[in-house]
Amino acid sequence: MESSKKQTLSIKVDPFNTDFAKRWSWMSLGKTLLNAAELHAKNRGFGMYNVNSENCTWVLSRLCVEIFEMPVVWDTVNVCTWIENIYRLFTDRNFSIKGADGKVYGYARSIWALIDYTTREPQNLEQMYGDDFGGFLAPEEECPIRKQGRVKPLDNDCWVKDIKSEYSDIDLNGHVNSIKYIEHIMDLFPMSDYENGRNMSRIEIAYMSESYYSDILSLYKKKIDDDVYEVEVRGRKDDSDSTLSQMNTLVRCKLFFK
Amino acid sequence: MESSKKQTLSIKVDPFNTDFAKRWSWMSLGKTLLNAAELHAKNRGFGMYNVNSENCTWVLSRLCVEIFEMPVVWDTVNVCTWIENIYRLFTDRNFSIKGADGKVYGYARSIWALIDYTTREPQNLEQMYGDDFGGFLAPEEECPIRKQGRVKPLDNDCWVKDIKSEYSDIDLNGHVNSIKYIEHIMDLFPMSDYENGRNMSRIEIAYMSESYYSDILSLYKKKIDDDVYEVEVRGRKDDSDSTLSQMNTLVRCKLFFK
Repeated sequence: MESSKKQTLSIKVDPFNTDFAKRWSWMSLGKTLLNAAELHAKNRGFGMYNVNSENCTWVLSRLCVEIFEMPVVWDTVNVCTWIENIYRLFTDRNFSIKGADGKVYGYARSIWALIDYTTREPQNLEQMYGDDFGGFLAPEEECPIRKQGRVKPLDNDCWVKDIKSEYSDIDLNGHVNSIKYIEHIMDLFPMSDYENGRNMSRIEIAYMSESYYSDILSLYKKKIDDDVYEVEVRGRKDDSDSTLSQMNTLVRCKLFFK
Repeated sequence: MESSKKQTLSIKVDPFNTDFAKRWSWMSLGKTLLNAAELHAKNRGFGMYNVNSENCTWVLSRLCVEIFEMPVVWDTVNVCTWIENIYRLFTDRNFSIKGADGKVYGYARSIWALIDYTTREPQNLEQMYGDDFGGFLAPEEECPIRKQGRVKPLDNDCWVKDIKSEYSDIDLNGHVNSIKYIEHIMDLFPMSDYENGRNMSRIEIAYMSESYYSDILSLYKKKIDDDVYEVEVRGRKDDSDSTLSQMNTLVRCKLFFK
């Protein structure tokens, strides 16, 4: 029996949710984390529809995923999520990613804020749900991956390319989807970086601000060490008045390959 | 009980598999069709792994999907697939897309060929599986949408943009994924074309040839009538020697909005 504090979303790695090497795609993995989070929240009365009715929305602030072994086509995967902690303005949500036989594929950590639609101000979570978040905190659950570090801004000369956000980038929250950034970031690397069994093993992402339909996203990349890269995404409106100084930092992240 | 001729893949429309309007995304819908097709074939001994071992692979030649009403977030969807017919070199596979309560969301038709990896020649299906395809033909099943028509080549002045195929475009068959073309094609339309309840209701696609990692894809678009468009995708290798005359037609399609 699953405890009332935890929620599991079970999926099968369908063939067209894999990459060229028949490994579960990071896009499908990332979306499954968000889907599990929303299922957990919805079933406990604080899903996106619940908070929307209070003029609020959940915003993903940090996401760190570490994969020891990537599931492959036809594997069954159980993504389990729970809330580790709440602070005044943030909550820590963790995930385990396991096989049907209990095999550990990886873990993830995330940090969320609840913001007011109108003021964009983060809400005091302790006031809304109590300091035990309605009794759903599960700090005793194990999430044995290290927390993510800070990523510093990259220099302008790390610029790689600009892309324009399109219809397919936008999710039901009306902004560029958090996981779609991962797709754009992974596309900065040549196919050869994913060949011969090599894969991304860990990603740490800080979501700094939101971007919207038809924004111009500028991607910057820097090699930090063997198999370690930093990527930054900055955004601006697509109008001729925009200047570089009007660019917002949207995302900073660090990627580890092995 | 499901007949041995049909296979159903049940999914729930998870929140992050929707578009900005909380409708099931065409990307997720399209991949679910392919996943259902592969599940049907695999369970009957002619899935991609079975035919790979005979140095062959299934190639999608035509796809036509018509949606009367698009499922929305949290809906349960049953995608059922069966083989309508085989010819010497092609097989017709159909799909129904229904709700848990039997509500009809839409239907799809597809045409596939089995090609030899080495020679790229289509194989004689009647020789391999018999003229009843191993007893799995189900021509009695209803697929009440019209077959797709021919789409003529578009003029060069219909060119909209070039994109380069990236890591995320490539699927486990090693080529640009058939459904990923739909994402690129839908991104040719401004968000306003999808707003106010408007959606794509039918797509007819002819897959003419394959493209691979780092190919340059050129997209052409033409308005045919109110709410009807044709799109063509041509491809070339990304090298300085390529000329327009070396472009292959990859995809021709017709889209209907309502």
